[in-house]
Amino acid sequence: MTQPPPARVGEPAVSIDTPALVIDLDAFERNLDRMAAFGRETGIRIRPHAKTHKSPIVARLQIERGAVGQCCQKVGEAEVLVAGGVTDVLVSNQIVGTAKCARLAALARRARIGVCADHPDQVDGYAHAARTAGVVLHVLVEIDVGAARCGVPTAEAAVALAQRIEAAEHLIFDGLQAYHGSAQHIRGHGERRQAIANAGDRVRAAMESLSAVGLSCRTVGGAGTGSFRFETAHGLWNELQPGSYCFMDADYAQNLDTEGAERGEFEHALFVASTVMSAAAPGLAVLDAGHKASAIDSGLPSVWLLPDVHYVGASDEHGKLSLGAGAARLGLGDRVWLIPGHVDPTVNLHDWYVGVRGGLETGVVEAVWPVAARGRMD
Amino acid sequence: MTQPPPARVGEPAVSIDTPALVIDLDAFERNLDRMAAFGRETGIRIRPHAKTHKSPIVARLQIERGAVGQCCQKVGEAEVLVAGGVTDVLVSNQIVGTAKCARLAALARRARIGVCADHPDQVDGYAHAARTAGVVLHVLVEIDVGAARCGVPTAEAAVALAQRIEAAEHLIFDGLQAYHGSAQHIRGHGERRQAIANAGDRVRAAMESLSAVGLSCRTVGGAGTGSFRFETAHGLWNELQPGSYCFMDADYAQNLDTEGAERGEFEHALFVASTVMSAAAPGLAVLDAGHKASAIDSGLPSVWLLPDVHYVGASDEHGKLSLGAGAARLGLGDRVWLIPGHVDPTVNLHDWYVGVRGGLETGVVEAVWPVAARGRMD
Repeated sequence: MTQPPPARVGEPAVSIDTPALVIDLDAFERNLDRMAAFGRETGIRIRPHAKTHKSPIVARLQIERGAVGQCCQKVGEAEVLVAGGVTDVLVSNQIVGTAKCARLAALARRARIGVCADHPDQVDGYAHAARTAGVVLHVLVEIDVGAARCGVPTAEAAVALAQRIEAAEHLIFDGLQAYHGSAQHIRGHGERRQAIANAGDRVRAAMESLSAVGLSCRTVGGAGTGSFRFETAHGLWNELQPGSYCFMDADYAQNLDTEGAERGEFEHALFVASTVMSAAAPGLAVLDAGHKASAIDSGLPSVWLLPDVHYVGASDEHGKLSLGAGAARLGLGDRVWLIPGHVDPTVNLHDWYVGVRGGLETGVVEAVWPVAARGRMD
Repeated sequence: MTQPPPARVGEPAVSIDTPALVIDLDAFERNLDRMAAFGRETGIRIRPHAKTHKSPIVARLQIERGAVGQCCQKVGEAEVLVAGGVTDVLVSNQIVGTAKCARLAALARRARIGVCADHPDQVDGYAHAARTAGVVLHVLVEIDVGAARCGVPTAEAAVALAQRIEAAEHLIFDGLQAYHGSAQHIRGHGERRQAIANAGDRVRAAMESLSAVGLSCRTVGGAGTGSFRFETAHGLWNELQPGSYCFMDADYAQNLDTEGAERGEFEHALFVASTVMSAAAPGLAVLDAGHKASAIDSGLPSVWLLPDVHYVGASDEHGKLSLGAGAARLGLGDRVWLIPGHVDPTVNLHDWYVGVRGGLETGVVEAVWPVAARGRMD
């Protein structure tokens, strides 16, 4: 069920078979360097999110630059990361079920494993699995900081859960998971900052209540590509979990900075290479990449490098382009580079990254990497 | 990059690991039988679409019941079908590029291969590949019947293309591809019938123009689960290409029949098994299945069997359920069966089908089938 690789190392980029997931390695490495520099300058720990890239190779490049480890959402992803040599993995999510908890605990024989809880039954499941495996699991209490999804709703509940963790012989209370998912995509700079400030109030309340019973937080984790500067400036968070920054996408690119301009901090480094396979009517071209090639949950892909050409409709295997008055003519066989609307689920549609050095149109294929945890939702 | 199978044959259905793609085999076989009966009763050829199921095993079950072959959208899918024993495959799409055309032609050594064209350059590509491989390809001229995506816009263009196909030594003009994709999801019965009637006018015009130059159509293909009765009743189409009918989805279930009631012709037979992994706030439960497990391009999944429980938000790995006043309490670890919003891209997210016999909640795992062409967009 694995696709054949769409390119070979050493080929010119123009010969990559399509649709394909292509990394502009130069832009990608600059993104990695920028986040690493931010970590060094501020002294905050960076734990990039592998839910975005699903690749131990990308993880290694992040860790070589100073990241403290990785986070991920699923036990299956953690298994791939640990098998690929990552020795510090946080599952930034709740894990339920005897079999899944046992798999999680088994990983703790080879790596430092963290996991989140927002209910006493999860804590009991982790404790049982860790005891059975003879390992230690590090547990963060997830608090709801505004996204109204996972996380305990009150400081009192956070304290009760932390005490339950502390009381379990094979569990270590590690601190708080305080991720505000829905804030990442608030367009306005001020509104996004305010959402994180509100989240910070809840973090502070939980930390004060924990402190009153003698519990301290080694870790206060959270933040994403859309908000990490706010959590850092706020001062309570000490570990950032950004994922998309390494690749960027059309959705994050719409977040505004202070002056209301589009963010330019990170570069688009991930593209879906596609080909025009039908052009039967004037003003229209159809690509071989629909939403089975580029995920549309956060909007359609953008067209890179071609002025006045717009991706206006995605079906399963087709992408419709409208060609405006200022567009060059697009003919059958022409290559079109798409910026995914949302990188995480787009990566999850592909089996291979094709890494290009020297620019998308003029460069050479330098790397073909498996998307090793593709489809690992288990 | 292949996921471990989420179940073993012989296990009770309740022990399937989640998220998992589960077929209710009883409902699935009834769906297959109903479409086969429709073909027998009307004498129309059924060529089910493998873009939905991506499985030679499902293809075989359809062909055993009388289907003439399969259609698909990509050369990579055709390769998987032919490797799995399907001997008659139509790529109901345009194929561009020397390498892809050569792969298509190579398949024609082992199977009857059809493909579509809406531009002379595609015809020339097919002709070159077929001549080089020493095979014959059957080519349908795709005409735009209202979807404004692929297909030549005029009868004159259809004739010119058909003549070009006929003139090529290794190509056979097989007829017309006349699929109205966007009509499939028109909710109203009358409006959908009208869209197909309009499509029929374009088919008739093309057939008359072809006839005037001495060309006849062995095949007039098209139709989907939402419209196949209309094409059949219209009389010009002689080959149906429905895909979703074998599984059904929440989107198709919203199509209305004559009386305005929801269609009951085909049953929901495909589900995403999921588990409640967080329930930290009243009235809310969070599933381990977000849009990496159940595609949301055509709407959120529906909740099966649980009154007053609604799937209200999908993020990458989380699904939020709202629990109404009439809902039973859902606790951590509880199993929830989801009906995908759209089956085709949902299937493409999974590596395995788990086939259950005897009902989702009480049955036994009878089959674990690979989604063999999962991810084959090449």
